[in-house]
Amino acid sequence: MARNTQVQADHNAPPITRILAEFVAQHPSRGWSDAVDHEAHRTFLNWLGCAVGAAHHEAADAALAAIAVLQPAPQATVAGRREKVDIASAALVNGITSHTFDFDDTHLKTIIHPAGPVASALLALAEHTGASGRQLIDALVLGIDVACRVGNTVYPEHYDRGWHITGTTGVLGAAAGCARLLGLDADRTQMALGIAASQPVGLREQFGTMTKPFHPGGAARAGLMSALLAQQGFTASPRALEAPRGFAQVLSTKTAWNEITDELGQRFEISFNSYKPFACGIVIHPSIDACVQLRDRGVRPEQVERIELRVHSLVLELTGKKEPADGLQGKFSVYHGCAAGLIFGQATEDEYADDIVNRADMVALRRKVVATVDDAIDEASADVTAVLADGSRVQVFVEHAIGSLQRPLSDAQLEAKFAGMADPVLGAGRTRELLDACWGLGDAAGVGALARLAVPDGAAGAAHGHSTRRMR
Amino acid sequence: MARNTQVQADHNAPPITRILAEFVAQHPSRGWSDAVDHEAHRTFLNWLGCAVGAAHHEAADAALAAIAVLQPAPQATVAGRREKVDIASAALVNGITSHTFDFDDTHLKTIIHPAGPVASALLALAEHTGASGRQLIDALVLGIDVACRVGNTVYPEHYDRGWHITGTTGVLGAAAGCARLLGLDADRTQMALGIAASQPVGLREQFGTMTKPFHPGGAARAGLMSALLAQQGFTASPRALEAPRGFAQVLSTKTAWNEITDELGQRFEISFNSYKPFACGIVIHPSIDACVQLRDRGVRPEQVERIELRVHSLVLELTGKKEPADGLQGKFSVYHGCAAGLIFGQATEDEYADDIVNRADMVALRRKVVATVDDAIDEASADVTAVLADGSRVQVFVEHAIGSLQRPLSDAQLEAKFAGMADPVLGAGRTRELLDACWGLGDAAGVGALARLAVPDGAAGAAHGHSTRRMR
Repeated sequence: MARNTQVQADHNAPPITRILAEFVAQHPSRGWSDAVDHEAHRTFLNWLGCAVGAAHHEAADAALAAIAVLQPAPQATVAGRREKVDIASAALVNGITSHTFDFDDTHLKTIIHPAGPVASALLALAEHTGASGRQLIDALVLGIDVACRVGNTVYPEHYDRGWHITGTTGVLGAAAGCARLLGLDADRTQMALGIAASQPVGLREQFGTMTKPFHPGGAARAGLMSALLAQQGFTASPRALEAPRGFAQVLSTKTAWNEITDELGQRFEISFNSYKPFACGIVIHPSIDACVQLRDRGVRPEQVERIELRVHSLVLELTGKKEPADGLQGKFSVYHGCAAGLIFGQATEDEYADDIVNRADMVALRRKVVATVDDAIDEASADVTAVLADGSRVQVFVEHAIGSLQRPLSDAQLEAKFAGMADPVLGAGRTRELLDACWGLGDAAGVGALARLAVPDGAAGAAHGHSTRRMR
Repeated sequence: MARNTQVQADHNAPPITRILAEFVAQHPSRGWSDAVDHEAHRTFLNWLGCAVGAAHHEAADAALAAIAVLQPAPQATVAGRREKVDIASAALVNGITSHTFDFDDTHLKTIIHPAGPVASALLALAEHTGASGRQLIDALVLGIDVACRVGNTVYPEHYDRGWHITGTTGVLGAAAGCARLLGLDADRTQMALGIAASQPVGLREQFGTMTKPFHPGGAARAGLMSALLAQQGFTASPRALEAPRGFAQVLSTKTAWNEITDELGQRFEISFNSYKPFACGIVIHPSIDACVQLRDRGVRPEQVERIELRVHSLVLELTGKKEPADGLQGKFSVYHGCAAGLIFGQATEDEYADDIVNRADMVALRRKVVATVDDAIDEASADVTAVLADGSRVQVFVEHAIGSLQRPLSDAQLEAKFAGMADPVLGAGRTRELLDACWGLGDAAGVGALARLAVPDGAAGAAHGHSTRRMR
């Protein structure tokens, strides 16, 4: 009964559950810089575009079919779809779709994808409660701060052990955000975090299956319900995060408690959020970026004799597949990525369709890519030279890829990414309106108008741009 | 990206996810002895009594209030209540109530309380799908086998680390049982187990709060939804349980794979299920049992000068509270337990009410208990001697307490336990009918009639015997 062989249990951890609860409940509305507030809007916009884009993926269809068995009340919007479901189920499905293309945001310090769990829970709840756009943005900033600070506390050991950190910390972020949106006091917010702490979602073994995007969805759902339970007086341990048998110590051996408290309320982790320009692993991004730049400099595929690629060994280790057979394998091929960059000038989900991966000109061009390992080059960089038929050479060195913290996507680039995903589902006109609604969210009296814009009307809804896509 | 510092990852684990999936999908109906089948009925009956008994606890009220926000469809019964909710929510609430009094079943090898997650999911699902009682019993045996075999695989390291093993393995048991009830084939059952593997519920830090009984409830809900998702084609890793970044290796360093395969289909873990006669930790049970036996031998409290108790040191370490202030503290007092045994001849939830703990005769008697540590006595035993006012001594040595595998509760004792919990909620007449329905479940055409009997009618429903109880 009282067995405890846990080594090195830390009985003196600071009361981080309480500290985070007070922070979430009491931090002033918009108590941060304009830059942070703008980043929150960018995070929300990027999240929504991903969710709309994958709305008709087979993972969404399967999830909605399972939910339909419960005969859910039509309370909240599923982005990109006409069905309405109860708020907990909407949080689940929007969390799934937003991560389905692996194209969502990344908190690079922890590789958490924070918007999936947090924004998915918040939009559903705000739509139902009639919360203002400002309240949603406030809750988003604070919820993401909780998820990412807990992530900083346990990363990397927690991730290395096999946890999909997006889902495990995401349930805490979603609970925190929803507690804020519900106006819970610090005591009940503390309980919400406590209830959530018992429900980490996500094993890395699931990567490559629908259960990977289920992780942020499940976390969104569980976090939302934790806040609703706490609102009703449901209790949990007040030290659920820090106790020897609490979240951090059970799920990680690294517990850097200072990551919770350092500059809390001054430094916001959402500031370090990033958005992928390319729908594949970040390690390929510098190489694709370089090829896009070659294209911008006028290099045409038909001129190319050879593409010399010098990259860190990790790039080939992870993405060295020379002859990808389909879109999924294409995501693990730097060769395909380079060809896409040079031919299309982009590498969105569209460029990872099976037929694109197997198109003759793409196959021919990727075979001209000659990769050399050079560990003097950082993993975040790439050195690419196009050798043309006339013998001339065009070189591009990318130190930091587009989409990195050093070279973030511009607002216009984020819009283009959003439109690429949303246009086929919503139509261009509605996509534009939805973009404007995202930028104006912090000033909106409610979130209902935005949610309605995320639903396809009769005509556009029929065009499911991504409906037949396989799972990534 | 590809960091993997996990030490001693086992890449050669047998395909236990597949093995369990084939077993669950393909094992013949009632493919076990009559004794096993009878034990399944006892497990179900004991589970239902606990759920009915705690139906009006404040934890149930809070959970149902949170669920009401979702405006659930009235699909399934909440045992002991008039509200109907959707099947996933019914699984959640029945899982919570069945564990609220800590009076449910125990698989002693792993201290898993298996019925909470598994039966809660199954009754809700069976009620909705119209499955037969036989199908439910089959699914219960198989689901519990999955939960407990996975428990055997990872216990005790997994529990020692801080996981509440009931919720972590329970989600797998619930998924397996629901997959069976839905008639999923081995492939989809494998996916159900995989989806469930990403959703372990439960940290031991939550003990003493409502989130402890939330664990079997959350596991029931998540397991049920995992089966529904798999039914719709949702995918997960086919090696989610055994892979290096799968369930067992991420959540435990002990992975005794043979526990999955040893005598699979021949030995059923439900055979090793036990039912508590007393509403407190098992370590006190031998002492209470001995005092009940003293009472049965005619010892009256007013005759008692002193009660000499000789027990293993662990008993006092865990339950040595001499002056418990309330019912919760009473659960950690072998002194209170002995007094209850001698005065009431039982120690149900009623004997852990605050007013009983503080009643003058109880206080006086517990102060006459003199405990001595003797590590020659097994933790499962107790040696108790009543020294009477006339100087005579009455001794009882309990080697194995009532409720242990060696001295299981008889069917009649199980019925009495059930009635003690259900009578105040349902009334004696309906309780009797419900007991009969439980014993006949395996032959019932459906589970609807049984579920209806678990709902209080107008008169009895008003008497909420346990409605004001605090959380244990």
